[in-house]
Amino acid sequence: MTDWTDPDALDLSDGETFDSLLDRADTREKGHFFEFFAEGDELAHDPGLRLSHHGSEQWMGQTLNHDPAYWRADTAQERGFEERPVHPDYLLACVMGITVEDLSEKGGYFLGRDDVEFHQPATAGTPLSVTSTVVDTRTSSSRPKYGIVTWETEGRDRETGETLVSYRRTNMIPRREPAATDGGAVGEQDEGGPAMPDTLLSPDGERFGDFQAALDTAREENAAVAYRHERGRTMDDQLVAGLPLSTLNTARQHHNRDEMADSPSGDIVAYGDVTRSIALAHARSDEATYREQRFADERFHDFVTLGDTVYGFTRVLDCDPDAGPERAGAVTFEHVAFNQEQTPVYSGRRTAHIQRHQ
Amino acid sequence: MTDWTDPDALDLSDGETFDSLLDRADTREKGHFFEFFAEGDELAHDPGLRLSHHGSEQWMGQTLNHDPAYWRADTAQERGFEERPVHPDYLLACVMGITVEDLSEKGGYFLGRDDVEFHQPATAGTPLSVTSTVVDTRTSSSRPKYGIVTWETEGRDRETGETLVSYRRTNMIPRREPAATDGGAVGEQDEGGPAMPDTLLSPDGERFGDFQAALDTAREENAAVAYRHERGRTMDDQLVAGLPLSTLNTARQHHNRDEMADSPSGDIVAYGDVTRSIALAHARSDEATYREQRFADERFHDFVTLGDTVYGFTRVLDCDPDAGPERAGAVTFEHVAFNQEQTPVYSGRRTAHIQRHQ
Repeated sequence: MTDWTDPDALDLSDGETFDSLLDRADTREKGHFFEFFAEGDELAHDPGLRLSHHGSEQWMGQTLNHDPAYWRADTAQERGFEERPVHPDYLLACVMGITVEDLSEKGGYFLGRDDVEFHQPATAGTPLSVTSTVVDTRTSSSRPKYGIVTWETEGRDRETGETLVSYRRTNMIPRREPAATDGGAVGEQDEGGPAMPDTLLSPDGERFGDFQAALDTAREENAAVAYRHERGRTMDDQLVAGLPLSTLNTARQHHNRDEMADSPSGDIVAYGDVTRSIALAHARSDEATYREQRFADERFHDFVTLGDTVYGFTRVLDCDPDAGPERAGAVTFEHVAFNQEQTPVYSGRRTAHIQRHQ
Repeated sequence: MTDWTDPDALDLSDGETFDSLLDRADTREKGHFFEFFAEGDELAHDPGLRLSHHGSEQWMGQTLNHDPAYWRADTAQERGFEERPVHPDYLLACVMGITVEDLSEKGGYFLGRDDVEFHQPATAGTPLSVTSTVVDTRTSSSRPKYGIVTWETEGRDRETGETLVSYRRTNMIPRREPAATDGGAVGEQDEGGPAMPDTLLSPDGERFGDFQAALDTAREENAAVAYRHERGRTMDDQLVAGLPLSTLNTARQHHNRDEMADSPSGDIVAYGDVTRSIALAHARSDEATYREQRFADERFHDFVTLGDTVYGFTRVLDCDPDAGPERAGAVTFEHVAFNQEQTPVYSGRRTAHIQRHQ
């Protein structure tokens, strides 16, 4: 009887032998199918990550987020941070990345995110602990092979237990068994084209007062405060595969071109938060950001693949002079990322504190 | 009248709506046109950067600059550095990168640099402060859509105010209004082919004495000390888009392929300092470098794009045994970077201290 532990028993360098072995061998699976998730489930995500400056600087550098408060200690102090924090986009990506193995590694599309709240600044050296709760599972009427799951996730400082960031995320998740369909598309509400504003205004400057003045003018003139940003960043390997993996996001659609060749996108697709971070960087480069606050109703409208270039468009929705510290006011924006064919790929509502004129 | 701040007033995920909005919206511009710059202007650059080992090691690693003095503390000490410094190429790129948003983000070509002086070693953790002065502005006779601007830039340690590196840089900068042309080419001096040396010598070893001996022999034999280096590094996304962005260089020609598709190069082009760093790495790999000193008359002759491979060629110009510490002598080289078609893409005069035989 052959001893199959004998190294020479199987010549794995021989193509035929290896092919037949592969066909018969089990695959140790990753991630979970839709059927695994039930409302109320709590998951503590094991993969660990320590927030670092080089991680933050890599994320910020490649997405053009160059706000000096996150690059230099003196500006951080001037901005009221005790210590130079890591960038909120990077923090969010690290927390999301850690959840992917348990929640969405099986594949399926990142449909959207809501109630993103930054509770306190996060600093380099902080080890993260992340937990998620299943808040909703439902069938997808348009895609029988998928179900839709929503989770609430909290990212905490593992040592102090303090919450750093929390949010709700919705993904399409492949089903083990496709469901009977009841027709009708999910999420493609077709409410017919809206009326268009007569004029589009852009603020004169980058301070809170400039956004407020533009909004006041717009109200009188049936106008919208809406404008584009000049920069555009083309998606390359570092952005599509590199950044998700550096935040432990193991979703295959970002790094396995072999598998993605026969997926709807035809190639690896960018991680939604990278596309988002680029559009936000363009917007932030045209404002005097004080601090990030929250995001709502974030949606991903289309795939972004290698070679696509991401631009930014912003509409100002609200100015609240009373929220935030003396030196800043809260502005709520709608930010849209769009590609070289002017196709919207991400949209979200962001509230940030913007510095006033000195 | 519609309230255009109502999030639902505009369905930005609807292609048609979004297209018409984009066509009408202003673009918040970046960078400055040629007309903005006047001789004597002083600019303090706001973007901030803290020199880091991970930034230095990324720059050196990807460009094959493997001199152990910048990777290991023991060799740094042996080389007379108090602490392991960041690499001078990385320091120069960080200082240049920080100036791009104010000086050259509008686009235009990096024509050349002169009087690059390294005043003292720079270490990780040092926050930079960078200022530039406009020293010359003139029209480009060959390209009416551009003007030519020269700045003097100083990169200092923000905490101590000490100057780390200084240089003069010249760029073609797009004009808001094209100038009337007076014909004649700028910068393409056609001095006719030089006589060719009978023989080309290369030094026997990598020490100061070897360069000196080769020069002495060459003088007797109507020869030049000129030789090639074996290595070649192909330009990929990390080098073309990654390295500039990791040093806050926001020039679109390095990362926006959509815009660059209809520029003269037809695609994103490498940042001059990356091409330079690669050719210098090849040269340094064939010498016993003690320390970098200065560069003069650096010029960029042609675009380098994705897929181009950068090789190195060196000519020894002078050996000065009295400059520098006991254990080293100063050698002045002309280094040329060339591509796979043997087209020169960069040239510059470099003076470095080279270790003597023990």
